Amino acid sequence: MKKTFQDELKIGIIKGGQLGRMLIQEMLNWNLKSFVLDNDVDAPCRECCTEFMQGDAENFDDVYHFGKKVDLLTIEYEHIHIGALEKLEQEGLAVLPSPRILKIIQDKGLQKKFYQENDIPTADFVLIENKNELTSHSNFLPAVQKTRKSGYDGKGVQKITSEADFARAFDEPSVLERKIDFEKEISVLIARNASGQTATFPIVELDFHPEKNLVEFLHAPADLSKSTEEEALKIVQKLAESLNLVGLLAVEMFVLKDGKVLVNEIAPRPHNSGHHTIEANYTSQYEQHLRAILNLPLGSTKMIMPACMVNLLGEEGYEGPARYAGMEKVLEMEGVFVHLYGKKMTKPFRKMGHVTILAENIEKAREKAILVKNTLKVSA
Amino acid sequence: MKKTFQDELKIGIIKGGQLGRMLIQEMLNWNLKSFVLDNDVDAPCRECCTEFMQGDAENFDDVYHFGKKVDLLTIEYEHIHIGALEKLEQEGLAVLPSPRILKIIQDKGLQKKFYQENDIPTADFVLIENKNELTSHSNFLPAVQKTRKSGYDGKGVQKITSEADFARAFDEPSVLERKIDFEKEISVLIARNASGQTATFPIVELDFHPEKNLVEFLHAPADLSKSTEEEALKIVQKLAESLNLVGLLAVEMFVLKDGKVLVNEIAPRPHNSGHHTIEANYTSQYEQHLRAILNLPLGSTKMIMPACMVNLLGEEGYEGPARYAGMEKVLEMEGVFVHLYGKKMTKPFRKMGHVTILAENIEKAREKAILVKNTLKVSA
Repeated sequence: MKKTFQDELKIGIIKGGQLGRMLIQEMLNWNLKSFVLDNDVDAPCRECCTEFMQGDAENFDDVYHFGKKVDLLTIEYEHIHIGALEKLEQEGLAVLPSPRILKIIQDKGLQKKFYQENDIPTADFVLIENKNELTSHSNFLPAVQKTRKSGYDGKGVQKITSEADFARAFDEPSVLERKIDFEKEISVLIARNASGQTATFPIVELDFHPEKNLVEFLHAPADLSKSTEEEALKIVQKLAESLNLVGLLAVEMFVLKDGKVLVNEIAPRPHNSGHHTIEANYTSQYEQHLRAILNLPLGSTKMIMPACMVNLLGEEGYEGPARYAGMEKVLEMEGVFVHLYGKKMTKPFRKMGHVTILAENIEKAREKAILVKNTLKVSA
Repeated sequence: MKKTFQDELKIGIIKGGQLGRMLIQEMLNWNLKSFVLDNDVDAPCRECCTEFMQGDAENFDDVYHFGKKVDLLTIEYEHIHIGALEKLEQEGLAVLPSPRILKIIQDKGLQKKFYQENDIPTADFVLIENKNELTSHSNFLPAVQKTRKSGYDGKGVQKITSEADFARAFDEPSVLERKIDFEKEISVLIARNASGQTATFPIVELDFHPEKNLVEFLHAPADLSKSTEEEALKIVQKLAESLNLVGLLAVEMFVLKDGKVLVNEIAPRPHNSGHHTIEANYTSQYEQHLRAILNLPLGSTKMIMPACMVNLLGEEGYEGPARYAGMEKVLEMEGVFVHLYGKKMTKPFRKMGHVTILAENIEKAREKAILVKNTLKVSA
């Protein structure tokens, strides 16, 4: 990258979902030009990006030709044609995060091996090629099966409690992970720039929907013992260094009953668990991602106020053009920030937006978050 | 307006400058569609609006045809063809603020008469048709002459200290205003929706350079006596009601040495003196403007933290493609938010961006603001 943000830098983003949209909203503050590649002409980024190109993130030609138009390439989604990214990188384009990291992320098997090789604590696992191999791993039960390559947003993940579940197991290369009896789930965002500077956001605590394996609420800062917090931060730091990360990394972790921490999954980009930073922190995760990939000084990650975040998911039983009931009621509440992603169509559990709630303390923020969740409904 | 924001409401904005750009950044959070009319194809709004139309705000046809494409029409600039707006309003389009108000704003003579008729305290004045009439108003000196129609951003305003200045006076219809010996200048933003709900932001104080007598910074909340604050808020409330305002109104006022308050100028739109609300308040002036024109409940105007705002003006002696020196240094500071407006070309004193500084108290914010001002420079 020879240009700087001074030169109306063209930043390519693959693809054009809500993470890209919120990244672009930040980019506008620094006059950075956004180029977006997505197959969907109605993608959330479409209407606010500088230039939109229709194309497939998993197609070599589409990714390669897109990369040739920009000064720096970043992502808001991991499943991108690695060969195209590698070729662009070889030809001198800054691709951040590096395809080397994306390769690991795209394959949950490689992710687990990476943790193992780098002494990053994670749940015990075995890799299997197909469901027939399950029979030789009965000693792992109860377990969670995760497909190595096709999982996303809770898909490609299922519980294998007993041998009776083998029949309906995924019949593809998978990670079989010993089920963790965890106390809570947390997420930590760390940024690292090319100069090696790192900055970690205050730890976030996640509350999952009991059935759908999707985040329902999150709050920050998390309620953790000092030693658990320190352990989590040490792991995250080690991950960023081992990956030789340039960009932002979200690290989802389990906190066990004894306070120990295990890494669950990582994502080298702005993340659902960092939306609240737009209002709650001095620097948002989106701005921090930009600082990291532009090798600018990283911003203060300090919280301005405690926060709670609610994902606005499409209601069950509705599919079609989205309607938002209860919006006026929610807008009457102080410290409540509604973000709609501009998706035309709702379907059950689709991420349609989020709401961040700031309050003096987590209890008050949570109280309001529950009210918001019970008031604001996305239907068709 | 039959549609609500539920229907991907198309909001027309005349014109496409930085105020429109920051309004659009907020609109993206609620999935509102932005249509922009501006003569300049490089206008700051161009790259982030849903649809851009090239056209002249002061041309009947351009404004009328633009209005026909949208569900609601608002402004970020006052000098718009009133006949076109009136026709659109007669034909059922919601034009907010109303052309009735814009007509008053466009003419500083009508503004002053409006204050007079509605018992709004303002500096003594006379209206003159040309500079020859000045000779009969020597008793008004020292005074400030303001052209009734052509002034903007400090243009069309000059001091007339003695009769010796008559020769270089503006030779057009003007307001001649008795010079005010004020203690400080303040600005208050008030919003009012169609239901009559009003909400006032904490008062903003304009900081003058100790020697140059130039406004350097703005800070909020202002340092005022309780009685001055109450008087200012009463005046602003009265103004919003008298104008039957729907939208946002910025009221610039002088505070006299005895604590009395006089209205200087008003603008029925988001305003330079409200930029800090993006980060410093629960609701930004841009979101509040949207709430007001959409007849939604107005948001809390409470401050999250004290703030200081610095305008980033083009340096003297430079004209050409803009460069921003010192950006990295400024980005190292905590609580500092840089907004660049995406203007390609700089020229002396052109508003190229602004920086908001949050801190525990005004003194600390001011300290950092001075550092920002001395560090970040816009040249060519």
